[in-house]
Amino acid sequence: MTPSLTSQTDLLKTPYWVEQITAAWQALQHQQPLIHYISNSVAANYVANVLLAAGASPALIDNPFEAAAFTQISAALNINLGTPTSEQMQAMRFAAQAAHDHLKPWVLDPVGYGAVLSWRSKMIDELLTLKPTIIRGNASEIGALAGRLVESKGVDSTLASHAVTQQAQHLLQYSQVIAISGESDFILCLSEDVMIEVQGGSALQPKVTATGCALGGLIAAYAAVAPASIATVAAHNHFAIAGKLAAAKTQSIGSFNVAFLDAIYEFNAEHIAQHTSLSITQLHH
Amino acid sequence: MTPSLTSQTDLLKTPYWVEQITAAWQALQHQQPLIHYISNSVAANYVANVLLAAGASPALIDNPFEAAAFTQISAALNINLGTPTSEQMQAMRFAAQAAHDHLKPWVLDPVGYGAVLSWRSKMIDELLTLKPTIIRGNASEIGALAGRLVESKGVDSTLASHAVTQQAQHLLQYSQVIAISGESDFILCLSEDVMIEVQGGSALQPKVTATGCALGGLIAAYAAVAPASIATVAAHNHFAIAGKLAAAKTQSIGSFNVAFLDAIYEFNAEHIAQHTSLSITQLHH
Amino acid sequence: MTPSLTSQTDLLKTPYWVEQITAAWQALQHQQPLIHYISNSVAANYVANVLLAAGASPALIDNPFEAAAFTQISAALNINLGTPTSEQMQAMRFAAQAAHDHLKPWVLDPVGYGAVLSWRSKMIDELLTLKPTIIRGNASEIGALAGRLVESKGVDSTLASHAVTQQAQHLLQYSQVIAISGESDFILCLSEDVMIEVQGGSALQPKVTATGCALGGLIAAYAAVAPASIATVAAHNHFAIAGKLAAAKTQSIGSFNVAFLDAIYEFNAEHIAQHTSLSITQLHH
Repeated sequence: MTPSLTSQTDLLKTPYWVEQITAAWQALQHQQPLIHYISNSVAANYVANVLLAAGASPALIDNPFEAAAFTQISAALNINLGTPTSEQMQAMRFAAQAAHDHLKPWVLDPVGYGAVLSWRSKMIDELLTLKPTIIRGNASEIGALAGRLVESKGVDSTLASHAVTQQAQHLLQYSQVIAISGESDFILCLSEDVMIEVQGGSALQPKVTATGCALGGLIAAYAAVAPASIATVAAHNHFAIAGKLAAAKTQSIGSFNVAFLDAIYEFNAEHIAQHTSLSITQLHH
Repeated sequence: MTPSLTSQTDLLKTPYWVEQITAAWQALQHQQPLIHYISNSVAANYVANVLLAAGASPALIDNPFEAAAFTQISAALNINLGTPTSEQMQAMRFAAQAAHDHLKPWVLDPVGYGAVLSWRSKMIDELLTLKPTIIRGNASEIGALAGRLVESKGVDSTLASHAVTQQAQHLLQYSQVIAISGESDFILCLSEDVMIEVQGGSALQPKVTATGCALGGLIAAYAAVAPASIATVAAHNHFAIAGKLAAAKTQSIGSFNVAFLDAIYEFNAEHIAQHTSLSITQLHH
Repeated sequence: MTPSLTSQTDLLKTPYWVEQITAAWQALQHQQPLIHYISNSVAANYVANVLLAAGASPALIDNPFEAAAFTQISAALNINLGTPTSEQMQAMRFAAQAAHDHLKPWVLDPVGYGAVLSWRSKMIDELLTLKPTIIRGNASEIGALAGRLVESKGVDSTLASHAVTQQAQHLLQYSQVIAISGESDFILCLSEDVMIEVQGGSALQPKVTATGCALGGLIAAYAAVAPASIATVAAHNHFAIAGKLAAAKTQSIGSFNVAFLDAIYEFNAEHIAQHTSLSITQLHH
């Protein structure tokens, strides 16, 4: 069932999305796609563990001499600008170009975008021209990227995510999907012309470093097996449900981290059926 | 209450310090300061998780093109020489200069200082001229830095920390506070003219990699909200109590690591009141 | 008891190996050797934690200005090609040269060797000329390295490890020991003229990232205190038993990771006596 064959009324209802993201999760388990990621030194290990737990096959190839070739044999690409080096910057450019040329879905995570971190911000501007399939970030980053001046406090968000959903629509000229992380997550889907709020998760998630980075990797993993909008909702929902289930087990941060990875791994179709909580509205242009 | 208004007799008693470090912990929770850190690849993830658990907002910005600008918007800086690259070396220099010029407290962790690791040792010599607010390291590193030849076994300490407290006083010409990690930790405070031994912790802590690096980050976090001496004692005490509480729960290393992060997160004023164990003496010049 | 004084019949029996690997484990606890490792950004933290838990003293020194000097004061070296940078590549070359010249045992882990990742593959070819004491990898990597074209899916293995044991014998012209990781592990020992299959472990191990990298580090740790063949079998057996014991405690991935590190740490001579499962055959040339 492709979006184009689905009525706009169906697209505004949760059952359609539950059906699609369940199929995406099953495809992820079945295909175990090879996911090329270029991420920051804080997240390098964690992204791999989350993706393995979720069923994908992650590989970090971040040198400029091999990146493009590896993108070509991968099913999807995730680029994260957290702690770039000069060599990684070149690798990002080459990998994004390869993804663009070979029609591989790719996710751009513009960590820290804004006036202070100008080096990466220029690179992010350049990467935008290679049309990332999906852009994901927190409200500060997406807000800044959409051109509005947002008071940025480092790499964490100071804006409520719903506040930037309006301005984020401008980014749909570059990407099919824009995802904004926060207490609730908001996902803007160009082809379906809807905005989906994914509820759930836990207040503990932002207390674990690199969860946003891992989410970017997971979106890429789902995008290897499903259309961009379905993939983005599926990944956010996977995280939201795992966060909720982990928080039901423990409220301290070391053990939450363990329980969260357990929940990412144990995640299944029944969890999707029971715990998915979406709020879907039409995009207003 | 600033040290200058406190009698030297009070400064030699535990209650003064308990009061101050409790206030520092509360300020940390309240302000959630942005902490700029440049650390090694082993510690990058762990430092962030410890700082988040403790209440701070950490960000690793280690490229030379953004480091200085980021220090300026941060509340404090932690520089760790564990696994430097050429680009990180430049970033360290620029960040330290920015901290120096903009009066931001900054912590220098001279990992591996000594004759064998000469490249970083020269950089550490250079960074010293930018007057780190606090220098922290193990006894080998602090001993070597203080000019005495110490038999160094890699990056771990072979000297008992109390053995180098005398020679460490020479470093007070560069920094306000010198902290030496070991079975007990020793902290030399210039303005209060005291040396404080922080007892507690667990023999398991050195079996978890990067705990010293994370401690350096935590000192910076406290230094963002409290004077350097208070901050350094507060961070060591936070670690010592968390280590003791975690070791009371488990004696194996994987689960200790989880329990330790839990204890860093659950830490509160009552823990400080009940478990703080300091031994305070006047500095003898 | 050196292999040369042991009859070939004894070398084909498990008791000889159990005796030797027990002695190796005891030597590791006693000597706590300094292990120099140069590894990838995904594995940097995990390798250190595994080596500390096993009793060694790991240090990651991966810059070209200090690597050779550090190899000289270390007891063994582990080089892993997972996510190389230009500076790390130089450091690897210098460290391997120092290990070669100063007769330090060293382990080469040719992560991702194959046609797609050509930059590292050329470096691996070059490193081979410096005669690594031990080469360890998964079946794809060892198969590719042995010259046979193997369909490689990123950095994970698509070949059953036993399928490449025959071709792997060609690599014994470069190294004393070749180790192939998989569901069972196969270790080819030149001086003993045997192949040893190490059974055990858990299907969860490949779901934790960097376990292979950590195994490479652990082989180096054992090689610091025992002959290459004993060391390689000891490290694989340590991992196989820890994996089996951890999987008996939990079947989810976050908690398995914790239980595995616990089991690495709690490992002792009784575990070796009770759980070692080897299958030893003569090498057929």
